[in-house]
Amino acid sequence: MRYSKLFGKTTHGELKDSRFISHQLLTKGGFVRESTAGRYYFLPLGWRVHEKIRAIIKEEMDRVGGQEMITPLLHPISLWKETRRTESVGFELMTVKDRSDAQFVLGGTAEEMFVDLVRKFKISYRDLPFTVYQFSTKFRDELRARGGLLRVREFVMKDAYSFDRDASDFQQTYHTLAEAYHRIFRRLGLEAAQVEADNGYIGGEYCHEFIVESEVGESRYLESADGSYRAHEDVAKFRREPINPDEEIKPFQIIPQPEWVKTMEDNVKHYGLPASRFLKNVVYRNVQTGEIVIGTIRGDLEVNKIKLEHAVDAVGQLEEATDADLARIGTQRGWVHSWGHQGARYIGDLSLTTVRNFIGGQKEAETDSINVNYGRDFECEKLADIAMAQPGYLTEDGRQTLIEKRGIEVGNIFQLGYHYSARMEGAVFVDQDGKEKPLYMGCYGIGLGRTLAAIVEKYHDDRGICWPEAVAPFQVHLISLGGSDQKAEAVYRHLTDAGLSVLWDDRADSPGVKFADADLVGIPVRLVVSERNKGKLEWKRRDSRTAELLELDAVVERLRP
Amino acid sequence: MRYSKLFGKTTHGELKDSRFISHQLLTKGGFVRESTAGRYYFLPLGWRVHEKIRAIIKEEMDRVGGQEMITPLLHPISLWKETRRTESVGFELMTVKDRSDAQFVLGGTAEEMFVDLVRKFKISYRDLPFTVYQFSTKFRDELRARGGLLRVREFVMKDAYSFDRDASDFQQTYHTLAEAYHRIFRRLGLEAAQVEADNGYIGGEYCHEFIVESEVGESRYLESADGSYRAHEDVAKFRREPINPDEEIKPFQIIPQPEWVKTMEDNVKHYGLPASRFLKNVVYRNVQTGEIVIGTIRGDLEVNKIKLEHAVDAVGQLEEATDADLARIGTQRGWVHSWGHQGARYIGDLSLTTVRNFIGGQKEAETDSINVNYGRDFECEKLADIAMAQPGYLTEDGRQTLIEKRGIEVGNIFQLGYHYSARMEGAVFVDQDGKEKPLYMGCYGIGLGRTLAAIVEKYHDDRGICWPEAVAPFQVHLISLGGSDQKAEAVYRHLTDAGLSVLWDDRADSPGVKFADADLVGIPVRLVVSERNKGKLEWKRRDSRTAELLELDAVVERLRP
Repeated sequence: MRYSKLFGKTTHGELKDSRFISHQLLTKGGFVRESTAGRYYFLPLGWRVHEKIRAIIKEEMDRVGGQEMITPLLHPISLWKETRRTESVGFELMTVKDRSDAQFVLGGTAEEMFVDLVRKFKISYRDLPFTVYQFSTKFRDELRARGGLLRVREFVMKDAYSFDRDASDFQQTYHTLAEAYHRIFRRLGLEAAQVEADNGYIGGEYCHEFIVESEVGESRYLESADGSYRAHEDVAKFRREPINPDEEIKPFQIIPQPEWVKTMEDNVKHYGLPASRFLKNVVYRNVQTGEIVIGTIRGDLEVNKIKLEHAVDAVGQLEEATDADLARIGTQRGWVHSWGHQGARYIGDLSLTTVRNFIGGQKEAETDSINVNYGRDFECEKLADIAMAQPGYLTEDGRQTLIEKRGIEVGNIFQLGYHYSARMEGAVFVDQDGKEKPLYMGCYGIGLGRTLAAIVEKYHDDRGICWPEAVAPFQVHLISLGGSDQKAEAVYRHLTDAGLSVLWDDRADSPGVKFADADLVGIPVRLVVSERNKGKLEWKRRDSRTAELLELDAVVERLRP
Repeated sequence: MRYSKLFGKTTHGELKDSRFISHQLLTKGGFVRESTAGRYYFLPLGWRVHEKIRAIIKEEMDRVGGQEMITPLLHPISLWKETRRTESVGFELMTVKDRSDAQFVLGGTAEEMFVDLVRKFKISYRDLPFTVYQFSTKFRDELRARGGLLRVREFVMKDAYSFDRDASDFQQTYHTLAEAYHRIFRRLGLEAAQVEADNGYIGGEYCHEFIVESEVGESRYLESADGSYRAHEDVAKFRREPINPDEEIKPFQIIPQPEWVKTMEDNVKHYGLPASRFLKNVVYRNVQTGEIVIGTIRGDLEVNKIKLEHAVDAVGQLEEATDADLARIGTQRGWVHSWGHQGARYIGDLSLTTVRNFIGGQKEAETDSINVNYGRDFECEKLADIAMAQPGYLTEDGRQTLIEKRGIEVGNIFQLGYHYSARMEGAVFVDQDGKEKPLYMGCYGIGLGRTLAAIVEKYHDDRGICWPEAVAPFQVHLISLGGSDQKAEAVYRHLTDAGLSVLWDDRADSPGVKFADADLVGIPVRLVVSERNKGKLEWKRRDSRTAELLELDAVVERLRP
């Protein structure tokens, strides 16, 4: 490809509103352009990278028996109603009506579509297991798009769906797909940690995210020191040690409290005791039902909203309560009681049993309660793990300390079990005994654009991108300097005839411009043709500072796989 | 691939509502399934064919310098307003609003998106010409979906857009793309005629459709006997010979006419003269403006609505008038005058000058006019070619007779010229003289699913599909019969290790079932492993009736490219 004819050349100057180096470099390098917020054009250079990523994913999906196919992007809304996902708010559905007033969801994930297809066939146990997948555009009406490809509203996703006979067969499928994911990300130059995660609006009982460590990542997870435990903050479990196990249980008391004692900090200061000795209450409202949910927790811990949502079976439905909500249950900010507000549901964290003689729980203008003991003085509807894990906490078995990591979620795998087949009639197979049984499912996603951005976040320096060979848009960036065009053309033809992919900067620009653009674009090998080099070619790897002079044959030799 | 694990096996029994053999065979063979009317799943087998078609198109597009990329599917409606295409009704736009109430068009074609992208760059004459293309899902809210893949509401289209310096450079681009199209369709096993066509809602001055002859095709075109002229009925030109050039011009007269004379047939019977001697008027209403347009034409010809729309610059906007419309201009069905109705625009066909002393034009209950001569007795707003060409008519030069053909439109190419760059500000390049000039454009589409269906319409027999090798889902359909599974597995491994693609029917079914399925699925070579064949393999081409016994090595030899 001659650079002079490439559509989408480099541009210079800082992008405003761009917090991410991948956004900066992909835009300036001529890989992508924003259309509307969160919707991107892939320019020819960027699309070459995208398609190399696709090819690697396809190879690995096919290797484990995945069968590629495609489903329509417009999903009849009736299917989403069957699974009641029109009510979930994990991502905002976009819907559209056709000329005959039929309503469709713009596909953001395709579980219902695949199940609807599968149930059109009379599946036998002999057909199982099978995994089908597609690369298709997904639409997500995200509240906020992040700069560049890290969080977008339209993107190509590889989504796979597995169908098994039962949970035991599924174990193997899930494991096989997880292994395929590790191979995919390794081939793409990414070390992706497999992290236990929240299943959110997808459903099912367990799932994992594949997260590439990065400071700019949105996914925060906790890892045990030896790496044997990795879990997203929304599901990370930790041990809650007893705080004061030897203290004697004392009688419940209401005591005066100065009016200035309002926040947790005030309490700590006033009583001279650590936050772990106090009760804390965080109030939420269910946006679907209006119900008030109070998370009651030890004062040194924070409520994790996602965990709380699972505890009350209201995924994606809780929002922090407003002053009006508090008024509705007869209280105000800072005065929430750990029991007794009419019309509120109380969910307690597991930590409530780790403290003897809690302080707090019945805060009024100038009084509060002390020596409050769970079980004796108050009880919640249930105790559950609703606390946010933090670095320094212990793993559940108490043997290791958790450390905090942050990264970009590039893929995820979900056990779905019977979540969809139970809700969609006819999602069954005929087993060996002649009986119809529900299909046992899993699903598996990789966002291609975000993966591409994650690669750039990892592979760049202050001059531009440094593509790993596996996904580089071209193998060689050929540069011809002053008057060497004829020689360069011969080199270009020789290399392309040898089956190598070459981007030839044949412009009349200065060496400085061409070198800077080559660094920005980031092709792994730069090859300079110049009269000065007396018939040899200057070879320089993008990730090296030193160049060497080589004969053309030696160049071909090095580049051949 | 083992057939036992393939998702989407054959099914049997007639499809109801299926008029097309491609729909029948693709459904029964396990290639596609309908989701909602006009929206299809491609099953793994069908997707393999689809992707082979894609690969061939991509190769040929790249060969002529096309650069693949991608644009978002949600187009900001503001872009469509810039070109005023929200007002055209060539296909029904689907629109959707996001959470912030921004409105988007679901892409049905992407001219605006590409122009909007290109104008983000400072294009120089040195960058020109270039052609960018994409394979992407298109949405068209068609009034009627036809059975199967022939007319759908959602499909993958390869759409390309060329940018040139001027009309003269563009000639070369257009020619190059047309040649690429011929190569593509030839490689796919299709002979596609390049036919002059209507540019419809796309705009521009000329365009061509690529049409594969087929009885079930929706595109009707006229072809000269020697094939040098091919034009869609909506644009086909023909010669209108003088009907009665030697007749003396007579004075205009109003004469009595029996009341039963109403239709053209009545007139022919009553006067004993051919239909070509009479005036005919066809009334339309512009659905956007309400304006009444009357097409006045020689009695033996039919008005072509598309041609008439172009004559009044109202593409896609005319509908046949209702009785109420006729009443509005003071007349009724059968009584329409060739002049004088207040508020109506009169457009005459070129044929109005080929007759001396027309009969008709001022029909009332018991009178009509005779000896009506265009120019002397009445004049239309203009004369234009608004007549439908028919087989048997002469080519414009009068040297050949037109014949009628029918086929499936699988691709089209459009000169757009300045149609878009004139409407979208900033769609310019900087020319050598330093001045900004508008970009000269073309666009080029191929519908992949319809092309696939066209292949099946052509390549099938009464037992199933007969895929051309270039697009067959697999090269070999391996069948193992009773107890030969071990031997078959060895053959399967040997062939796949040799790089051949094999579908192995490893089911426990009877030979009859397996043979029938192989015929239905249509893979070019059937290979049977059976104890009876004493170590040899039974080789049969799908398009042949005779089988032969071959050694495994001979099989590999034959199949290697």
